[in-house]
Amino acid sequence: MTYGFSQRTAGLRSSAIRDLLKLTELSDMISLAGGLPTPDSFPVDDLRREADRLFGEYGPRAVQYSATDGVPELRSWIAAEYSTAFGREVAVEGEIVVTHGSQQALDLLAKVLVDPGDVVVSESPAYLGAVQAIELFQPRFEVIDGDEHGMRVDLLADRLAAGLRPKFVYVVPNFHNPSGATMSLERRRQLAELADRYDLLIIEDDPYGAIRFAGAALPPIASFTNRVVHLSTFSKIVAPGFRVGWMIGPPEVMGWVARAKQAADLHTSSFSQLLLANLVARPGWLDAQRARIVPLYRERCTALADALEETFGDEISFLRPNGGMFLWATFPGIPDTTLLLAKAVEQGVAFVPGNAFTIDQHPDSNARFSYSTVAIDQIDEAVARLRRAVDELHA
Amino acid sequence: MTYGFSQRTAGLRSSAIRDLLKLTELSDMISLAGGLPTPDSFPVDDLRREADRLFGEYGPRAVQYSATDGVPELRSWIAAEYSTAFGREVAVEGEIVVTHGSQQALDLLAKVLVDPGDVVVSESPAYLGAVQAIELFQPRFEVIDGDEHGMRVDLLADRLAAGLRPKFVYVVPNFHNPSGATMSLERRRQLAELADRYDLLIIEDDPYGAIRFAGAALPPIASFTNRVVHLSTFSKIVAPGFRVGWMIGPPEVMGWVARAKQAADLHTSSFSQLLLANLVARPGWLDAQRARIVPLYRERCTALADALEETFGDEISFLRPNGGMFLWATFPGIPDTTLLLAKAVEQGVAFVPGNAFTIDQHPDSNARFSYSTVAIDQIDEAVARLRRAVDELHA
Repeated sequence: MTYGFSQRTAGLRSSAIRDLLKLTELSDMISLAGGLPTPDSFPVDDLRREADRLFGEYGPRAVQYSATDGVPELRSWIAAEYSTAFGREVAVEGEIVVTHGSQQALDLLAKVLVDPGDVVVSESPAYLGAVQAIELFQPRFEVIDGDEHGMRVDLLADRLAAGLRPKFVYVVPNFHNPSGATMSLERRRQLAELADRYDLLIIEDDPYGAIRFAGAALPPIASFTNRVVHLSTFSKIVAPGFRVGWMIGPPEVMGWVARAKQAADLHTSSFSQLLLANLVARPGWLDAQRARIVPLYRERCTALADALEETFGDEISFLRPNGGMFLWATFPGIPDTTLLLAKAVEQGVAFVPGNAFTIDQHPDSNARFSYSTVAIDQIDEAVARLRRAVDELHA
Repeated sequence: MTYGFSQRTAGLRSSAIRDLLKLTELSDMISLAGGLPTPDSFPVDDLRREADRLFGEYGPRAVQYSATDGVPELRSWIAAEYSTAFGREVAVEGEIVVTHGSQQALDLLAKVLVDPGDVVVSESPAYLGAVQAIELFQPRFEVIDGDEHGMRVDLLADRLAAGLRPKFVYVVPNFHNPSGATMSLERRRQLAELADRYDLLIIEDDPYGAIRFAGAALPPIASFTNRVVHLSTFSKIVAPGFRVGWMIGPPEVMGWVARAKQAADLHTSSFSQLLLANLVARPGWLDAQRARIVPLYRERCTALADALEETFGDEISFLRPNGGMFLWATFPGIPDTTLLLAKAVEQGVAFVPGNAFTIDQHPDSNARFSYSTVAIDQIDEAVARLRRAVDELHA
């Protein structure tokens, strides 16, 4: 049988991470490859009690159809949180759309903004899920390199001065996936200024901001300009399996996004939204949850960084992230980390090669290590296996 | 501020139904306009117990990320159900993708199949949500009229013989929304034969099939050919607020759909899928649920049909549906039911004019009445108000 598929399917590259995750299901594999939050962080008992209370209090309304842009309980919480974070009043109506995770926010934004051939600016390395979501709508990616302070906004300024006019600029400002970098305060201000000067739209994707275990929090780009769609999610701070995220943006953009959301799936689960909204609205609950889970990430990150430094010395270079789930490392003596991965899998440890996070996918010396789901007492063993893999590669 | 939106947004027409639903929120309005299932049908106590059991038994796994195509528990149930319905073995892997309701299935299918200008065949009147989802991808709709036995497959055969080559043919075979029609056995076979002869893909959307309150069940089109993507959902038989539906189709199509789903939102809520899968897998549970809820729809449908016949006599014509949520009526003396709606809203009753369900939206004499959420003792009052509205219109 044959079917005529859309040209759009050319953009549906298979996820290198997804293929890898299949390998990591092998029982003796230690995976530093995945991007899952640690299950230790999920507040299962609180969710259980809240679910029971929800059915009791709301009855059938908890599981009926609901508004496309989100249940009022959740939009009210989001509006209050971000009115503080942005330093201006965020409206409950018109500026917020609840989504099936931040991933859907990217899909909807690309859907209403991008025609084939339109320019989209992305950092490199880039979050693969964003590239996948946007690529379906056939843009031309204009890649701006990043460093330890985030996207090189000076390079973007040069290209804008030379005439570049992108549909939007996509950035992950806090504890970037995969680079671990956090955009500096100065660059946040500069990017906001560029948005205002050139009528740009910034997509500020912030799934990890709440998992900060070192340094002081920085204000979001959305606090410096209104030309931002700010994305976040409950996936890392509560639990990802509910698929509840949100975006806050200019009413003109959110209006189209809401219509696209209606066409895409009507709305996000009423039950999941109410459950999470009622949980995080409890006084003090979210602060306590953060205080409980941030140390889980801090201690694993420290253990991994220590073990990598001790084991590899000058053979590796990386910066310790201030939060999030990922440590981004460079092996100067290894020109192609996909070859290292093959050896690593033989030794029983997995990671993601750096080129999986680039648009052109050329081999490079980088690797993304996720420490979030590795038991603390397995980290030394994981790094010992990686040591053997590097030795095998050089043999 | 201005933003450059995609040409795609031209396809994002506002939903007449959504605009109407705002009116129906007025407290004294009796709404025959909505498409919500009756909340009386939701098994709240069973869901509450199952949710509690799920947190206890699965722990963090109930709320972790899960596979893009669906949790194995749900795919296993779907495979077993449809192996029986289709009379062939449906595989747990490769043929099934779980979605955020049937609405998302339409979005994903259009995304991987439709390029601008491609032909898509739809019935008229058509399910508005499908039109909205597909229209975003800029197809040309080829409309085939329906009658009380569903799509006029003979007309489709003529156009295929004349050279029409659509990307797919979209049908709602059971208790169509809005027409209430059920496609005859003969036409199901004929459509399957056309699919085989012309290498067509059929999208068989079946949200209402389980709500049959008269007549004998008919086999799905997917039981006559493999060239079908069959869509269904828990929205009408359990509850819609979880946003859990599914599709079953040729592996080649489902492969692309799964990749598009990954890019769109990674996966459907692990928690909702597990909750519903474990509930419906309980021996006898689904049969008991059907036996409980089908009479709720039957009695409301009968009451509405009786009242309309008594009140309007020759001024109205309709066929009594055998199931589902909608009664489709024609007022031969009223050329434009949007004018009737204006009068009806003044009288405190709402319905949806027929032209809302057409591609060209030309005014017509049709009306969709939904009986699912009207209390049985309000139906006579609703029809009395409609009587006054018709009299006002003729005055």
